[in-house]
Amino acid sequence: MSDALNELSLFDAAAAVRSGRASASELAAACIARVEQREAEVGAFESFDAERVMASARALDGAAPSGPLHGVPIGIKDIIDTVDHPCRCGSPIHMERRPGWDASCVALCRAAGANIFGKTVTTEFAYFHPGKTRNPHNLDHTPGGSSQGSAAAVADHMLPFAFGTQTAASVTRPAAFCGVIGYKASYGSFDLQGVCGLAPGLDTLGFLCRDLRDIPLVRSVLCSDDSTFVVRRDGEPGPRIGFVRTPHWKQAEPATRRLLEATARSLSAAGARVDEPALPGGFDELAELHHVIMAFEAARARAFEFLYHRDALSDKLVALLDDGMRIGRGQYLRATTRVAAAMTGLDALFDRYDALLAPSAAGEAPAGLGATGDPLFSRMWTALRVPSVTLPAGTGDRGLPLGVQLIGRFNDDVALLSVADWVQRTVLP
Amino acid sequence: MSDALNELSLFDAAAAVRSGRASASELAAACIARVEQREAEVGAFESFDAERVMASARALDGAAPSGPLHGVPIGIKDIIDTVDHPCRCGSPIHMERRPGWDASCVALCRAAGANIFGKTVTTEFAYFHPGKTRNPHNLDHTPGGSSQGSAAAVADHMLPFAFGTQTAASVTRPAAFCGVIGYKASYGSFDLQGVCGLAPGLDTLGFLCRDLRDIPLVRSVLCSDDSTFVVRRDGEPGPRIGFVRTPHWKQAEPATRRLLEATARSLSAAGARVDEPALPGGFDELAELHHVIMAFEAARARAFEFLYHRDALSDKLVALLDDGMRIGRGQYLRATTRVAAAMTGLDALFDRYDALLAPSAAGEAPAGLGATGDPLFSRMWTALRVPSVTLPAGTGDRGLPLGVQLIGRFNDDVALLSVADWVQRTVLP
Repeated sequence: MSDALNELSLFDAAAAVRSGRASASELAAACIARVEQREAEVGAFESFDAERVMASARALDGAAPSGPLHGVPIGIKDIIDTVDHPCRCGSPIHMERRPGWDASCVALCRAAGANIFGKTVTTEFAYFHPGKTRNPHNLDHTPGGSSQGSAAAVADHMLPFAFGTQTAASVTRPAAFCGVIGYKASYGSFDLQGVCGLAPGLDTLGFLCRDLRDIPLVRSVLCSDDSTFVVRRDGEPGPRIGFVRTPHWKQAEPATRRLLEATARSLSAAGARVDEPALPGGFDELAELHHVIMAFEAARARAFEFLYHRDALSDKLVALLDDGMRIGRGQYLRATTRVAAAMTGLDALFDRYDALLAPSAAGEAPAGLGATGDPLFSRMWTALRVPSVTLPAGTGDRGLPLGVQLIGRFNDDVALLSVADWVQRTVLP
Repeated sequence: MSDALNELSLFDAAAAVRSGRASASELAAACIARVEQREAEVGAFESFDAERVMASARALDGAAPSGPLHGVPIGIKDIIDTVDHPCRCGSPIHMERRPGWDASCVALCRAAGANIFGKTVTTEFAYFHPGKTRNPHNLDHTPGGSSQGSAAAVADHMLPFAFGTQTAASVTRPAAFCGVIGYKASYGSFDLQGVCGLAPGLDTLGFLCRDLRDIPLVRSVLCSDDSTFVVRRDGEPGPRIGFVRTPHWKQAEPATRRLLEATARSLSAAGARVDEPALPGGFDELAELHHVIMAFEAARARAFEFLYHRDALSDKLVALLDDGMRIGRGQYLRATTRVAAAMTGLDALFDRYDALLAPSAAGEAPAGLGATGDPLFSRMWTALRVPSVTLPAGTGDRGLPLGVQLIGRFNDDVALLSVADWVQRTVLP
């Protein structure tokens, strides 16, 4: 365990509070100090009030333990409502929006003792148009999107844990670009009341963190999942892992291709049974089907802003919503039917594999802050609704983080996390 | 067409505005006059501002036609956000809640020219605890719930059309009790951004209205469905109708059982092919599985109120949410898996039937305003996510309305409406 309290993981911080080794106030103070040191450069927060965080910490220190997150600070992506902050959704349209309630994930964590630390920067309505956040590993590079403030705050040790959401690649990509763990749950795992929607058939809550053990802990709070996180011991047979280059392999940077191939070899050498499964039919078209579903649904989900505040939207979002309004219901339903068929094919694959290994993103975080990178390598998995975890896996040619992505069976998230734990301990830096 | 403008259907009112036979102002004034005459007794509205409605009508009269709903007044259940009213969700917790945006369904209708007339009374968070609304057919009886203000306003000719939502029986039952058409769409048909959730795997937007032609019209606005509403002509073969007594037949009142049997006979005599299909396996347990899903999801969706405002919730809602927090994720997932299997079985049934005929509710609206009646006869259909339309079908022994329910194939809503049109013209009063 690190000596610096702001460097503790959520899991370790909760244990430290429980055992009396640290107080909620000490944890909050350490995180606040890091924010004060770094926020001017990194820009991870949309809304943050150090005095309120400290008052909340003192109240938690004076109260009986209220749950498994007692006293630990967590960050909330600013498309997720909290009762004590505005929720601006990355848009000038909602600068003054005060939701008046906590989203379900916030209420459940707060009741479990979490200290709601602040609102982290999101791209506009969790689509492409970036906020102010910079990549803490190189301030001239994007941190990725859309959960950019959450990923940067966790990567830069301002917070142990922050919520993100994913409709295309909004957890996986910033996690990979910032060098932290990104977990996108099985679709529907967590209630989304109070989370501003982009495409409800795709939108999924996710976590940015630095310790895989954080994930089952927060899952238990959000959806009462008490599945066992199995730590695979030395000598046990390794997991069965399918290496999936995806139909987009040629679009991955050379360093990403080398990393994935080396990881597959290392896993095999470490005892995993690794091979390359034939993908079920329809995989080639999933990225395009994902776009059809996202555009159709987003045009309805953001109807208020699109129809009444079009001039205040970015060009890219207007283009998406215009496209969505042109898509007929027939085309949309055909896309969902084809994705459902691919889901069935993928599910059968998990009779033979414990997890799939795939790229997290095309490569390192691109230079510049005007865009957040390409979501291509996550579109298919998000459309398929399966759980995904991206793990930090060293750096690329430009010295910025790279990730590897592991995909699990739908609604078997904790089994995926158990494999990820083995992969991380066995072959990752 | 009736001479009284407040008695026009949405379809006819829109046509009247289009042709110049009526203005938005005349329609609004007629509806307002009816509200002023009746609201003190019926209590359909949570929030209503006659001056704002008239100002909006005058603006619409002065503007170019903006869409297919130009100038027609519609009502909005008060769990659905509008930018110009509070949204209280039937709870003292949210008396001052100002959402700051329109829900998607409101924005899309407003952009199509609808005059957003006011917020209609809902039970507490669309569950059981009733609001102030009375049944316009007998003020000592419940109008049903949870979309009680919407059903009563439409039944009493205060409005041609109002939105409701259904998680158990919240559109079907008040429609039947108040003697209007109730339409519950296929799950997922309409975006629910800005609609306060109770159980997101069940929650569905629905319509209360007096004319089946209203339904495809509003569907086209909300989800760009351009499926053809086929009017079946004399001499064509009648539809194939499966008469489903449901596992709860013995709990239906005698008048309901007589009505359904007489309707089945009349349909057969009129040329429909009517028989009683064997139900797919698992039907007997659907009502119970529906409860498991609703309780589990509601405990998370209403976490904010449950965890921080428990004392301000009704006993019945607290009991539901307590129950939901005790349900493990494993039990919940098993329930969703069993319901999914029944969906597959039901879908196959629609290879042989154009629609199913079933009771809308156990019987007439019960006496008293302290409860809203039993949702039993809708639980299974809502869990199965299929579209439903309930049609007024005369009165029962106590002189209050009865309905018959028609069920269609998932995502084939307009085909169901075409059958409903034939049924209504051919055999209903």
